[in-house]
Parts: sequence; C-alpha cells; structure tokens
Amino acid sequence: MRNLALRLRYDGSAYHGWQRQKDLITVQQVMEEAVEKVCGEKTHVTGCGRTDAGVHALRYCANFRTDCSIPVDRIPLAFNTRLPGDVAVTDARVVEDGFNAIGSCVKKEYTYQIYNDRVHDPFYVNRAYFYPKQLDEALMQRAAAQFVGTHDFAAVCSSGTNVKTTVRTVYDCSVSREGKLIRLRVSANGFLYNMVRAITGTVLYAAEGKLRPEDIGPILDSGNRTLAGPTAPPGGLYLTRLWYREEVDLFG
Amino acid sequence: MRNLALRLRYDGSAYHGWQRQKDLITVQQVMEEAVEKVCGEKTHVTGCGRTDAGVHALRYCANFRTDCSIPVDRIPLAFNTRLPGDVAVTDARVVEDGFNAIGSCVKKEYTYQIYNDRVHDPFYVNRAYFYPKQLDEALMQRAAAQFVGTHDFAAVCSSGTNVKTTVRTVYDCSVSREGKLIRLRVSANGFLYNMVRAITGTVLYAAEGKLRPEDIGPILDSGNRTLAGPTAPPGGLYLTRLWYREEVDLFG
Repeated sequence: MRNLALRLRYDGSAYHGWQRQKDLITVQQVMEEAVEKVCGEKTHVTGCGRTDAGVHALRYCANFRTDCSIPVDRIPLAFNTRLPGDVAVTDARVVEDGFNAIGSCVKKEYTYQIYNDRVHDPFYVNRAYFYPKQLDEALMQRAAAQFVGTHDFAAVCSSGTNVKTTVRTVYDCSVSREGKLIRLRVSANGFLYNMVRAITGTVLYAAEGKLRPEDIGPILDSGNRTLAGPTAPPGGLYLTRLWYREEVDLFG
Repeated sequence: MRNLALRLRYDGSAYHGWQRQKDLITVQQVMEEAVEKVCGEKTHVTGCGRTDAGVHALRYCANFRTDCSIPVDRIPLAFNTRLPGDVAVTDARVVEDGFNAIGSCVKKEYTYQIYNDRVHDPFYVNRAYFYPKQLDEALMQRAAAQFVGTHDFAAVCSSGTNVKTTVRTVYDCSVSREGKLIRLRVSANGFLYNMVRAITGTVLYAAEGKLRPEDIGPILDSGNRTLAGPTAPPGGLYLTRLWYREEVDLFG
C-alpha cells in the first residue's frame, strides 16, 4: 500500500473550506470523491490544514493511502480530468509511510492580498480585499513586524476551535506592494483559527491610525481579542507555502 | 441634458454578453438598472459593441443621456456602490451631444488569452483557454500575421448576425508569451460575430500543424468557414482597447 502525497492548488470561492461538513461542499469531499473515481477506493484524504470558507490555496498538500497501481506521473492528469476546474492536482509523490500532510508539516506561509485603489477591479472579486483608501505600506510593515516571535496569539484568534495552547512562533510577517496589490505574508509553525485574517485587520487598523504599531505587543500580551483589529474577509487569503520535516520543500 | 460616457471593466463570466435579452442577465441590463438607481431615470445605455456570453472587458465604453446633476467625478463611486462586483465604472466624462459609444468608435482591440501549461490553473477558469500541449508562439505569430490587412473575413465569422459586408481592416494581429500565458491581440476597424475566437482557433490549428500559415490567405479568399479553425471558447476573450473619433483614446 502506497502513501501518496499530492500538491494541490484551489480557488476556494465555492467551498466551505477544506474539511468535510454535512450538507456543505468542501475541498476534502471533492478530493475524496476524485480518489474514489481514480483509484476505485473509498478512503480518507488528509489535508495539511483546515482552510476557512472562501480561502484559497496556491499550494496545498494532501495525502492518502492506496492500493491502486497507477504510475505516480499519471496521477495529476487522472485527477484533473475528474476534479472540478477550481481544484487542480499539480504534482504527486510517493512518500514514506509515516508521512502525514498535517502532522509532518513544520511551517506554513499564508499571504493576504489587498486591492488598494479608488475603484475595485471585477477580476479580484473574492480574490483580494478591496480597500479604496490609500494605504501606507511602510506603516503597515512596522505594524506587521510586531507579530514576529513566539507569542500567545489569543488576541488575534477567533473562538470556535479547541487548541491546547494559543502560543505560536511567527517567523516572518511582512508587507509589500506591487502596483495596486498589497500583500501581507505570514509564516509560522502553526496558525490559530482566523489568525492571519485578524493580523491583517490589526495591521489595517494601524494603517488607519486606530492603533499604533507599538500598541500591538501589549495587545498580544492582553490576550483580549476585542483590542485588536477586525477579522479581514476570507477571499483575500491564500495558503502559499509549506515546509515539511522530511525535506525543506516537499515539491521543490 | 448631458451626454455621459462611462468607462467600464467587467468579468463577463456570469453574463450573457452586453446586449439586453429576454430572461437572460446581461451587462446592459445591470447598467440600465444602475442608471435608474443613481439618476432616477429609465434610459437606454448605448454600449461600444456586443460582447458574447462569457466574454470580458478590461475596457468598455457606454454612454447615456441624463438630466441628473450629479458631478461627473462622483459618478464612478455612485455606480459602483449599486452595481454587482463583477462590473465596475472606472471613469466618467461629459461628452459632446453627438458622441455615441458604438457609432463614434473607429477602432477596437480584443485580446485572447491562452493558459499553456501541463496542468490547468484554477484561478484562470473562465479567464483563459487552457491548452495543455506546448505551443510555439513564433509559429503562431506567423499565422496571426496573415490576418493583417483589409480582407473579407467571412471564413472566420459565425453566422447569426446581419451585416452589410464582411470586409474589415485588421491593423494588428500579434502573439506574445508571458510565462504560461499566450496572448493574441487583434485590432481592427470592426469585428464580425465570433471573429477573434475563430482567428484564435485558426492560429491554434496552425500551431497544431493542421494548416500552414500560408494557407490562411487562400482560406480567407474562399470565404468558407469550414476551412478555418474552430471557434475558441469565450472565457479567454477580453475587449482591451478602444479608439474614438473625437480623441485618440477617450479615457487616456
């Protein structure tokens, strides 16, 4: 029995996140249905993390165990002809038996995309957060830098999931602009529910003068969600990179 | 009574083209509904051309006459708060009374976008034509160049509209690649029904070796639609530029 790891890319607009839910369409469900069509087996597909409804993935990793003998280089096409167009398998690998898409993942990067112009762009609907007031990315960068380090991130996490601890290590949190698009990149050893979207809302609060960058440390220390900025909408959020224990980057 | 010209941008995925149709949603209909909400007047909005179902516009021009006194610099925001997210008014101008978005237009450019990679990209669904086999853009360019000039374009036009003549002048027809995206740009003094999509299908036929670039002249001379390539799907097509009699480019 082989353990297959797939690299995926998906437009999450039409999905209620990764994880299977009763009566709601999710990416995990369409992946498990595709495995059944390709391999003829009902099986569980493990994902590298829950993404929320409407959140996208430029890179996502999933794995499953199978007896099917289809050559690994034919797996992407076999899946893509059976998946809906908004989900694509971009690569496949046979991995060691102990590999687990979520358990073996040591670091992830999310990118939040803001469309900052006077008029919104129809081609970024559900793909970037439209913010019409001019944003100062240098000020946003000063705010973003406050999140780097090992902190209790309870102040930028929505309730709704049970976790043992709300302490995480953020390795990088940085802001860049490319024309009308501003991107906030956050990499960490793990993320809490809505954490990147709440960090984004807090960085935007700093840009609006509603708090100062130096207020962010004390807000994190307080653990009080109401002191930080709001949760930015899901359509701007993308899972963009993954790091695994076995290799620096499983799929190069 | 002012004559207002609007510059628009729209994602045509959800629309049955520009022109009003019974029981089908069109861009003209949502624009006329927006005029009624903004100006309180039922009026006809003239567009610079019919676009087909699923075709997009990075630039589109529409005009209408109105007694409403709203300052022209407030028009885009007034419309955008009332339009669906997939249509945006990016600019507005008061134009001379004789201006007509279609009648005054002397030249248009359409761009057809092809996503050329082994695996499709979920973020280009309905926005580019996925073509998995490696395409030779130099060969495509040699085929595209054959369309330049004043010709009878009946061989690359679908039946279904009444036109006085199928003769048009193509000023430019060129192919470029930017990473995985290949773009075919066609500018002309006017376009026939499905003309750019049929030119694209014919250029792809040349890339596949199903015809030679030098066959295209005789195919145009024959006026026989069945000798040219197929009509490429609508999602790859964008109206990208307009030229007007009054000014080289109405909106800079």
